[in-house]
Amino acid sequence: MAKPLNVGMIGYGFMGRAHSNAYIKVNHFFDLEHRPVLKAICARSADKAKAFAEQWGYESVETDWRKLIARKDIDAIDICVPNNFHAEIAIAASHAGKMILCEKPLSMNGPEGQKMVEAVEKTKVPNMVWYNYRRVPAVTFAKRLIDEGRLGRIFHYRAKFLQDWTISADLPQGGTALWRLDVAAAGSGVTGDLLAHCIDTALWLNGNVATVNAMTETFIRERKHNLTGKVEKVGIDDACAFLARFANGSLATFESTRYARGHKALYTFEINGEKASIAWDLHDLHRLQYFDHKDEGKLRGWRSIHVTDHGGDHPYMDKWWVPGLQIGYEHSFVHQVADFLEGIAKGKPAMPDFRDALRTQHVCDAVLNSAKTGQWSKVAGD
Amino acid sequence: MAKPLNVGMIGYGFMGRAHSNAYIKVNHFFDLEHRPVLKAICARSADKAKAFAEQWGYESVETDWRKLIARKDIDAIDICVPNNFHAEIAIAASHAGKMILCEKPLSMNGPEGQKMVEAVEKTKVPNMVWYNYRRVPAVTFAKRLIDEGRLGRIFHYRAKFLQDWTISADLPQGGTALWRLDVAAAGSGVTGDLLAHCIDTALWLNGNVATVNAMTETFIRERKHNLTGKVEKVGIDDACAFLARFANGSLATFESTRYARGHKALYTFEINGEKASIAWDLHDLHRLQYFDHKDEGKLRGWRSIHVTDHGGDHPYMDKWWVPGLQIGYEHSFVHQVADFLEGIAKGKPAMPDFRDALRTQHVCDAVLNSAKTGQWSKVAGD
Amino acid sequence: MAKPLNVGMIGYGFMGRAHSNAYIKVNHFFDLEHRPVLKAICARSADKAKAFAEQWGYESVETDWRKLIARKDIDAIDICVPNNFHAEIAIAASHAGKMILCEKPLSMNGPEGQKMVEAVEKTKVPNMVWYNYRRVPAVTFAKRLIDEGRLGRIFHYRAKFLQDWTISADLPQGGTALWRLDVAAAGSGVTGDLLAHCIDTALWLNGNVATVNAMTETFIRERKHNLTGKVEKVGIDDACAFLARFANGSLATFESTRYARGHKALYTFEINGEKASIAWDLHDLHRLQYFDHKDEGKLRGWRSIHVTDHGGDHPYMDKWWVPGLQIGYEHSFVHQVADFLEGIAKGKPAMPDFRDALRTQHVCDAVLNSAKTGQWSKVAGD
Amino acid sequence: MAKPLNVGMIGYGFMGRAHSNAYIKVNHFFDLEHRPVLKAICARSADKAKAFAEQWGYESVETDWRKLIARKDIDAIDICVPNNFHAEIAIAASHAGKMILCEKPLSMNGPEGQKMVEAVEKTKVPNMVWYNYRRVPAVTFAKRLIDEGRLGRIFHYRAKFLQDWTISADLPQGGTALWRLDVAAAGSGVTGDLLAHCIDTALWLNGNVATVNAMTETFIRERKHNLTGKVEKVGIDDACAFLARFANGSLATFESTRYARGHKALYTFEINGEKASIAWDLHDLHRLQYFDHKDEGKLRGWRSIHVTDHGGDHPYMDKWWVPGLQIGYEHSFVHQVADFLEGIAKGKPAMPDFRDALRTQHVCDAVLNSAKTGQWSKVAGD
Repeated sequence: MAKPLNVGMIGYGFMGRAHSNAYIKVNHFFDLEHRPVLKAICARSADKAKAFAEQWGYESVETDWRKLIARKDIDAIDICVPNNFHAEIAIAASHAGKMILCEKPLSMNGPEGQKMVEAVEKTKVPNMVWYNYRRVPAVTFAKRLIDEGRLGRIFHYRAKFLQDWTISADLPQGGTALWRLDVAAAGSGVTGDLLAHCIDTALWLNGNVATVNAMTETFIRERKHNLTGKVEKVGIDDACAFLARFANGSLATFESTRYARGHKALYTFEINGEKASIAWDLHDLHRLQYFDHKDEGKLRGWRSIHVTDHGGDHPYMDKWWVPGLQIGYEHSFVHQVADFLEGIAKGKPAMPDFRDALRTQHVCDAVLNSAKTGQWSKVAGD
Repeated sequence: MAKPLNVGMIGYGFMGRAHSNAYIKVNHFFDLEHRPVLKAICARSADKAKAFAEQWGYESVETDWRKLIARKDIDAIDICVPNNFHAEIAIAASHAGKMILCEKPLSMNGPEGQKMVEAVEKTKVPNMVWYNYRRVPAVTFAKRLIDEGRLGRIFHYRAKFLQDWTISADLPQGGTALWRLDVAAAGSGVTGDLLAHCIDTALWLNGNVATVNAMTETFIRERKHNLTGKVEKVGIDDACAFLARFANGSLATFESTRYARGHKALYTFEINGEKASIAWDLHDLHRLQYFDHKDEGKLRGWRSIHVTDHGGDHPYMDKWWVPGLQIGYEHSFVHQVADFLEGIAKGKPAMPDFRDALRTQHVCDAVLNSAKTGQWSKVAGD
Repeated sequence: MAKPLNVGMIGYGFMGRAHSNAYIKVNHFFDLEHRPVLKAICARSADKAKAFAEQWGYESVETDWRKLIARKDIDAIDICVPNNFHAEIAIAASHAGKMILCEKPLSMNGPEGQKMVEAVEKTKVPNMVWYNYRRVPAVTFAKRLIDEGRLGRIFHYRAKFLQDWTISADLPQGGTALWRLDVAAAGSGVTGDLLAHCIDTALWLNGNVATVNAMTETFIRERKHNLTGKVEKVGIDDACAFLARFANGSLATFESTRYARGHKALYTFEINGEKASIAWDLHDLHRLQYFDHKDEGKLRGWRSIHVTDHGGDHPYMDKWWVPGLQIGYEHSFVHQVADFLEGIAKGKPAMPDFRDALRTQHVCDAVLNSAKTGQWSKVAGD
Repeated sequence: MAKPLNVGMIGYGFMGRAHSNAYIKVNHFFDLEHRPVLKAICARSADKAKAFAEQWGYESVETDWRKLIARKDIDAIDICVPNNFHAEIAIAASHAGKMILCEKPLSMNGPEGQKMVEAVEKTKVPNMVWYNYRRVPAVTFAKRLIDEGRLGRIFHYRAKFLQDWTISADLPQGGTALWRLDVAAAGSGVTGDLLAHCIDTALWLNGNVATVNAMTETFIRERKHNLTGKVEKVGIDDACAFLARFANGSLATFESTRYARGHKALYTFEINGEKASIAWDLHDLHRLQYFDHKDEGKLRGWRSIHVTDHGGDHPYMDKWWVPGLQIGYEHSFVHQVADFLEGIAKGKPAMPDFRDALRTQHVCDAVLNSAKTGQWSKVAGD
């Protein structure tokens, strides 16, 4: 029987649901030494916390995250609050000896993230950041293909994350629902929210980024603010595109926007190697496109691989249904919990931990700096 | 707080997992008056039942389904065993006053199904058959479009269910893992296993089938039998294709096989109406293809609708994540449980109930009869 | 310098244009011993013939096809008139010693086609039927893959030809523009017009059809007739679907209709073999879909092959542009002329000749017979 | 009867074939006042010129382009030679009063192009540059949709032109076949060869580019040179990516490379507007992807428009076959000749003329300058 691992979650929004669902499902599909227990949910509003606890089966409720952290019966803190609270909570939790599962991005910026890394490395608590797309089976599969050397020397990397939900000028900014549009809570716009995902995957698949050259734009310059009730300047970037050179010599383009009419969550990447190329797309996340130059000449073509096979060939998929039957977005979180628990059991942390996720902050910082200066910007080292 | 509805499940295979997952998840995402409780799992092997109970959180274990049915603390029986046991268990359960959730197909054939219908209608127990594909959001959405009259007069219906997992002659038949290849357990091959899905959807979307004309084939005529250890004649149909005329005057083609190299679970259907056409594909189940003749001439084209929008527009999707983030196969079962529970609360049964599912049996019977006689075969009425 | 081959064309409609274009282009792209010369165009209307001659560069005009056939300076007769004239003209042309290039279908029915075959085989004139889709590079490529044994034993063949241009009840039948809707001129509806293409390709790729079982439908039963000005019964089949068993043991479904809203000329076929599968689609005719079970398990997927490579690997494509740049519908006719001319030079006729095309008539006859009788119908042998 | 327009072509390579084919076909499909006559082909090698003349029906041969230009019986000069000869020939031809059809890019750089513009504007000869992709029907259709205001305010433009034919280090540079790899003949690598196409289309569809920020790379730094026989430094850019801001406030990314394994000629663009988005792809050039926010919410989806309809709705397509039957790459040249001839007849020049094409040179210059300096670079005005 698996050992309980008591989770205390802070925040109950979209990510609170995604994580809770993952904690509940993971042991039904994965054989693990540990079993997450939904011990406590913490939110400023007691009513909302109670409602959430009832719906998801949390055993208790807190309204002050410091009290949650102080509880002896909590093993791990899951941070699902806006970005501007990540550092304070994570550092306090690490000092309380709690494991930490922190939503992405790690922090508001690199220096803040650096402090978080120092805290968890000093206190030696297991820590992880929820860059869930690494665990979409097609993406994990891409990583394996690269590690097997199938792509050869990499020439090009390109990634985009396109949405269209902020085109209306009537949309306000700020508050619980729209904190992602409020620079004080989010730190940045699409750069920290969406490009951070693209960068995390890219660093994982293609190594370090050396230099970047970026432009940003805020198409709607003023929006009503939900906290003040007044029309205020918009501080976030609505769109960001940047050129990059990786340490391995490959060239890259990255782009994100919330003004790409027709795209809801179109995170795509493509990698062109000397020997093979791969491409992936979040809108059809269960497929990987693959082109192999080794194929007999006349039969070369992009393969649309339905990443649902069993027998250990397609990552994680032996845990689910049968070949041909797809899983969805939520499963990436289940996989990440499974890997986190396995990491604890084996003493080998699941990635990205705070230090690994800090690299993404450094790229984001360089991107925003370049957009401001109009110059190429070097990415800070580890 | 939702009222408990105690489930006793018989069988622990693939479908046992899919249903258990649905029972556990449903209340986290849907607001319902009832809450399924995993009360007991029943299997002939006590060890396997215990292991399943531990993994999924069933409170107790039974090895004799008659004992399960006799238990006072069980409200509903879920039948997840091979087809040849459906009738006996369902009839007994109905006499014990239990609600019944029965895996598809309803029965081995029409006459047997007729008895099951009579039993549940006499005992008035809520009953349902797990034709889960009706609750894939894109399929439910197709139904709504048809009901809104958007397609107009229907000319054509075509459906296929293509797999490739039995091409090897070395694959044995029968036993726990391969009962689908054993005619004694399954009743038929692709007709009852795969075409039954296609037929259920078709009857729901396009009304009754009047007549059919079918051919079947068994490509591998003998396989080792897991129960006897001997090479025995294969009694199932490996492939089946049929022509059909619907009561509404439309023409149809149906085909299923387990010998379509390259396809794992490619259930597809397309409907051509006077005003619009729709098409769907299980391999990318979150999309619906739609062509509307009303569109301005030069801008007409097949739309690839990513069925993930919110606000009640795309069926069930307001319960899940955000637009652009897809769900998967398992969610169709969650939706079916949600509808079943809502049906109980409102006294309006979720479809297909046994009577509704019996219509699919009648079509299957006519198909198999036509394949044998080489003649057009009329489908028995309700 | 290539030797002139003087062409006399009868008919100036859609196919007259497609063939003329092919005659003009062929020597610019193919190195051949012969060079088609547009010697004469024949049409009942002198005005229309002259206009066509001027636009396309025909040297002379005839209004009586018997005079054309009698001309000494004509080497080959190209028959582009409605089906009901094919036999009479072809037989007369063969007796006059002319080569014959006849539009498809060969004839109104099998017995008529038989006489045409006897005529050309007695007079030994080179003869060919314009089943142009064999020469779409992706289709020719499919044939090569099959001949190389890459698919192994064939289990399934399925073909469709879907259009939507006759859904309006206001569309009349008959006359120059709409003779395809007039059974007296066309012989049948979609069976001879569209399914004939599907059948020709199928016989070429998969061998003889043994038996068929068909249904046909005429959705609009009466239409105004352009020749009489009166509303008259529609004699053609608007839709036809049939089951078939090939001599090689594979099962097939065929379907055609002009009532599939959203499809203009969607000719598709798919072949499932033990070792590999292929699929093709006229709407994207430059691509072949290919699935190879030999591929490493985890990397298996349908390849979308852009059939535009050079070096002899992709049929005909070394004659055109550069890899990645697609050709279109008209090129299939250029290829067929090239092969016809090469056949003359080498004394090895380009297929399908009349005898080969007669097999398609036999299948069509069996299909229409089965639709009438409701019985399985055997296909007449060669 | 159409008036002859005597063409003298210089160069006989890939583009010589594409243009010749267009001259021959245009009057068969378009009703025009003029008719191109293949009067003379000019090449340094008399043998090659003769062979080309024989294959394509040119009436005469020249080996000195100055003689060709001096001929009284030549109305128009078609320049199909490497970029480094464009200016000299075009300026001389304009002084000789010849119309000029010049292959793209216009020139080696902006200042050189400026002289060409001055020459043709002074001599008032009709002039045009072969940016053929504007005349792919789907692209022309995109332009119409934009001009009709269907996209609204434009937020984003992105274009790529990806190839993979120079990955091998064994490929030499220079000479007749590979002048595109020789900086002395080509002026630049992918920037002038491929991005020039992307830029031309973008300027046409989205207006002027204000500023750019670029990076270039030469992956293979040395290659054997076909003219010297020695291994020499590669002077061209193998890959180029740039950020851009358009005058209309939209943001753009552009990228081109010959190192994108799996892509042969993948020119794609996508435009995101407030009201609608469009996307196009050269590998399936007969389709336009279109998303319209005006569509009823639940039915929104990207439409795949098969740009083959008639009746004037889909540009140029009423001239060709029937709906559903696609045309290919070569037809874009036929359309451009048709428009050029119509422009002459109506006294309204077909675009892009030299002045229009000069804008593309200015963007290319800014791109290459930015790549060298690492700074944002302003695009020179008209």
